[in-house]
Amino acid sequence: MLRTKLIDLLNSHYPIIQAPMAGGITTSQLVAEVSSCGGLGMIGAGYMTPDQIREQTSEIKQLTSRQFGINLFVPNDLPVSEKNIEWANEKLESICKELKVQHPDRIEVPNYKHLVNQFYEQIKVLIEEKIPICSFTFGLPSEPIIKELKQHSIILIGTATTVSEAIEVENKGMDIVVVQGSEAGGHRGDFLKDTQESLIGLMSLIPQVVDHVKIPIVAAGGIMDRRGLMASLCLGAQGVQMGTAFLTCIESGAHPLHKEAILGTTEDQIVLTRAFSGKWARGIKNRFISEMQEYESSLPAFPVQNSLTKSIRKAAALEGKKDFMSLWSGQSPRLAKNQRVSTLMKSLIDEQSKSFEDLT
Amino acid sequence: MLRTKLIDLLNSHYPIIQAPMAGGITTSQLVAEVSSCGGLGMIGAGYMTPDQIREQTSEIKQLTSRQFGINLFVPNDLPVSEKNIEWANEKLESICKELKVQHPDRIEVPNYKHLVNQFYEQIKVLIEEKIPICSFTFGLPSEPIIKELKQHSIILIGTATTVSEAIEVENKGMDIVVVQGSEAGGHRGDFLKDTQESLIGLMSLIPQVVDHVKIPIVAAGGIMDRRGLMASLCLGAQGVQMGTAFLTCIESGAHPLHKEAILGTTEDQIVLTRAFSGKWARGIKNRFISEMQEYESSLPAFPVQNSLTKSIRKAAALEGKKDFMSLWSGQSPRLAKNQRVSTLMKSLIDEQSKSFEDLT
Repeated sequence: MLRTKLIDLLNSHYPIIQAPMAGGITTSQLVAEVSSCGGLGMIGAGYMTPDQIREQTSEIKQLTSRQFGINLFVPNDLPVSEKNIEWANEKLESICKELKVQHPDRIEVPNYKHLVNQFYEQIKVLIEEKIPICSFTFGLPSEPIIKELKQHSIILIGTATTVSEAIEVENKGMDIVVVQGSEAGGHRGDFLKDTQESLIGLMSLIPQVVDHVKIPIVAAGGIMDRRGLMASLCLGAQGVQMGTAFLTCIESGAHPLHKEAILGTTEDQIVLTRAFSGKWARGIKNRFISEMQEYESSLPAFPVQNSLTKSIRKAAALEGKKDFMSLWSGQSPRLAKNQRVSTLMKSLIDEQSKSFEDLT
Repeated sequence: MLRTKLIDLLNSHYPIIQAPMAGGITTSQLVAEVSSCGGLGMIGAGYMTPDQIREQTSEIKQLTSRQFGINLFVPNDLPVSEKNIEWANEKLESICKELKVQHPDRIEVPNYKHLVNQFYEQIKVLIEEKIPICSFTFGLPSEPIIKELKQHSIILIGTATTVSEAIEVENKGMDIVVVQGSEAGGHRGDFLKDTQESLIGLMSLIPQVVDHVKIPIVAAGGIMDRRGLMASLCLGAQGVQMGTAFLTCIESGAHPLHKEAILGTTEDQIVLTRAFSGKWARGIKNRFISEMQEYESSLPAFPVQNSLTKSIRKAAALEGKKDFMSLWSGQSPRLAKNQRVSTLMKSLIDEQSKSFEDLT
């Protein structure tokens, strides 16, 4: 297989990154198995404490000798009024009742300073644990942090949804840019423009980014099999990041109902919503999304709305009520399979080596 | 070059269709030149009278001996109330004033019966003129029409934006399906689901359609160069349909300001709007779209809103005011060039023959 700059940077066999999905999906088994199979496993650590990161890092190191990466959320200081929080909290009252979840009168929401401190602590741990690759979503870290990570020779990956964002990622010194198309499941990674103006399909987005940045480009969004991998390479990406395809794998920690829902749905049931977290994200339409739709544009920003819906999502998961779970999925659910990571990786790579060299 | 079923059906050298853009863009020079260069030129005849179709057909036949196709809009019977029409007409009053266009108190809007008769007449002409290929948007024609066209050995192309629509296109007996991704410029071709649920990126849409239909698939949306062509073939399409890439060509009849606008914009300025026609369409954000945005969801359906805005669009074009023109564009404006059709075709085909055979 042709060695590209991307493969050199990732120190992997194949240009395939397992998307760092947050919220318990990226189990140590999943991350380790992807890396063992020659891809790059990633911990979705956005919501994780330093201790949780330490614990998982040590677990993964016992499962594989190959390297893996981690993803962090860059905190944003978005103004949210007390009144808006109260209003949004009220809108959840009847659902709390139905799920028999205590509906608190006042909810503690994370403040920006606290989030920044948490972020610093996550950075500290990944340096201590010598995790060699770190990707960021929802923006880029500050210059001092970038400088410190580079001093520790950590490979940095930024996320972009438009050409301008990709240029910003390169200018800030990131080594690789993950280009997230409108097809992608879960949270949108936009950080410069409105989400609605950052919903560009990969067929358009990749070649336009390729023409404007020099760092290796990784395509993300709706890629599920060898066809998507090959198409991404044709468009000028050096590799792919796949989320939904790994989410339904046996090793993933996604809720069984979440996996089932993806395996049973179609591309026209996948919608964008702010209802779960205050940030636009793509997932399977369910009752929660439908009922909250009329309030959607007025809900408080991430992570406030995320805190408000936490107890609902937790109860729904425990009681197996998928109508109130956040069933994130990209736009290719018909291509999802419940299979081992090794089977998925093999199907991506088979017959690929030859064509890959022909194309690049 | 490998002969695929698509190339056999189109009787072209290359699996490249020039999208049938309506409204004067597909001049005889454009259509003829695309066909002469080995692709398939298409007349965007949605708004054309039988006489106009006859005239253009005869013009094109003088310019090329190769075959070309035509596209028609399938009429839809969408209920629109008088009150809604009056309300929407009022919303245009201040813009009419600014453009010094007479703002009529009452507007004659096309009724469904009339549209169906017009459609029958268009069908009659294309049979008389022996146009060998006909594509449809906004739905599928009735069974008797399909039967009649087939008796005249006319190759039929349907447009789909979801897997269900592609299956419907195949089941109704179409020979080819154009699969329109969310990246595509101009009007959305959805006819079974809401537009918002039919905005699937090509990276997701093509392989999912490939797994569900047997007729040849043509990818459409954001494809501008060889990278997009090759990626589409990787995903399982047999060819591509390109709109914006041909729109900015020298031979196209698009307004010079329209071409200029595309050549000068970026992917994050391209939005979806119902403001011009009552049907969702993708184009460059301008004052008209911004000012109408708050009314968007309540505007009367196509073709009523299209009739209401006709005088505004006409005056804007005449006076060169692009703030009030419908500047349709796909999501890849950065890849657009003002070039000859022959240059574009050559750049698509160069080095492609070899790889095309490797891939399929």
